[in-house]
Amino acid sequence: MISRSTKIAIIGLGLIGGSYAKGLSKSNYNIIGIDIDEETLKFAKDYKWINEGGNNPELVSDADIVIFALYPSDFIEWIKNNQKYFKKNAIITDVTGVKESIISSINEILRDDVEFIASHPMAGKEVSGIKYSDTSMFNVANFIIVPTEKNTEKAISTVKDIAEILKFKNIVILPPKEHDLIIGYVSQLTHVIAVSLMNCRDSDNLVNYTGDSFRDLTRIAKINDKLWTELFILNKNNLIDEIDSFIQTLEHFKNALNIENKEEMKKLFNQSTERRKRFDKNETTSN
Amino acid sequence: MISRSTKIAIIGLGLIGGSYAKGLSKSNYNIIGIDIDEETLKFAKDYKWINEGGNNPELVSDADIVIFALYPSDFIEWIKNNQKYFKKNAIITDVTGVKESIISSINEILRDDVEFIASHPMAGKEVSGIKYSDTSMFNVANFIIVPTEKNTEKAISTVKDIAEILKFKNIVILPPKEHDLIIGYVSQLTHVIAVSLMNCRDSDNLVNYTGDSFRDLTRIAKINDKLWTELFILNKNNLIDEIDSFIQTLEHFKNALNIENKEEMKKLFNQSTERRKRFDKNETTSN
Repeated sequence: MISRSTKIAIIGLGLIGGSYAKGLSKSNYNIIGIDIDEETLKFAKDYKWINEGGNNPELVSDADIVIFALYPSDFIEWIKNNQKYFKKNAIITDVTGVKESIISSINEILRDDVEFIASHPMAGKEVSGIKYSDTSMFNVANFIIVPTEKNTEKAISTVKDIAEILKFKNIVILPPKEHDLIIGYVSQLTHVIAVSLMNCRDSDNLVNYTGDSFRDLTRIAKINDKLWTELFILNKNNLIDEIDSFIQTLEHFKNALNIENKEEMKKLFNQSTERRKRFDKNETTSN
Repeated sequence: MISRSTKIAIIGLGLIGGSYAKGLSKSNYNIIGIDIDEETLKFAKDYKWINEGGNNPELVSDADIVIFALYPSDFIEWIKNNQKYFKKNAIITDVTGVKESIISSINEILRDDVEFIASHPMAGKEVSGIKYSDTSMFNVANFIIVPTEKNTEKAISTVKDIAEILKFKNIVILPPKEHDLIIGYVSQLTHVIAVSLMNCRDSDNLVNYTGDSFRDLTRIAKINDKLWTELFILNKNNLIDEIDSFIQTLEHFKNALNIENKEEMKKLFNQSTERRKRFDKNETTSN
């Protein structure tokens, strides 16, 4: 169990790291913040979201728990260069949106006397930076813990504690392979669709003719280019399968339309309607 | 100009027809409601959304303005069978989501002493029936008037009056061909995408792993099968072009991902981000 004397380091105080610091400090946990940006550190200190902070990796040496909220490539780089500063038996976790490759990259290089337990808070916004930090996004979001057979119960329960302190709506455990397969569909494919819908036409003159549905489908087309390029490449095979499967579904619909097969079109509409309704039920029961 | 003595008939008191009746009656206009469903008529009368109503097409004979809120095929059928009851010089309008083919079908059969002016209220919900009637959806929606060279200024200003009484956010005029091209992209393609995203995987076990983005992208996958089958077939060529162009855009993205062309991926993300931001600006200025 995490206690008030547990020291938690957060590395990277962007939107997610900043929101973690905000939420954990509000519950009176002892937070060390590490970031390369002076203004970000000042912001976190001014709001008392961190007890101490700086640019120096040595600051982790007191931390019992270290949370990485960096881009995947920066996370791996940081471990390579600075893991010597970790406290013995420290528990390391992250917020990365894909898991199989990151878990294998980290475990390959990580010291034997610390433990990496992967987690994925499924929360985000179309903006970045500490000043947009907002813990309310966690209250409607899933938190996925992604253990391997090497992880201890202690490490799993530690990240579960963090998710509970941050008031995530729902905490689930998934194996890495299954996590990445699901994320390829529910998160990554949806982002590819939004970006492609926005890109497939020069839509500047269409602003006056769009309704809610177009706006809803393209909201996530405002996207962090560096982060999502990394996440997509790290889950490339799954995502390509999902895009292919989606294109096939579109082609099937197009063919039904082309030959004016009304029965098939209605069947497809009824299927999507029934499936989507089950998500409404879930929205009702879980809110 | 419409005056309080103008008699307005609404044919079809579903979600849209019912919401028209609600909004126009609240502003004290004289409404005749025609529907084949007894309960619907009772509902409209109980709420005083219609002054008189019934199942009998002869009821239109007093109306100066006749608004059709029927499925496209029922609209054409009604005109064929019952246009003899129209008052001379009556102005006929509709709410159909596609325009070129419906305008040509109606004008081909319509009496010479009445005038059809096409219009498209870009409002809707994922439910149907008079009991969901809601005029607030008009306050955030576009109203498109779709005249041909045959239409008179009087008819155009009449439907403009209706849109103003119903408090649509934005009233625009578009030629039929341009209307259908734009709708194929901003409305129909988005519905095909939502339906196909819901259909491309059996997602029952995924409810716990979806975030806001998946829910936003599939909200309109709950779809009226009869209505949208008709609308899509009436705009088949445009919609197939849009689906093809969208698939090409997806393939282009997939290829960039496949060869891990980070620069191209970032370029596509930046393009979608910049384009989508312009829609935010519009949201800000128009609200």
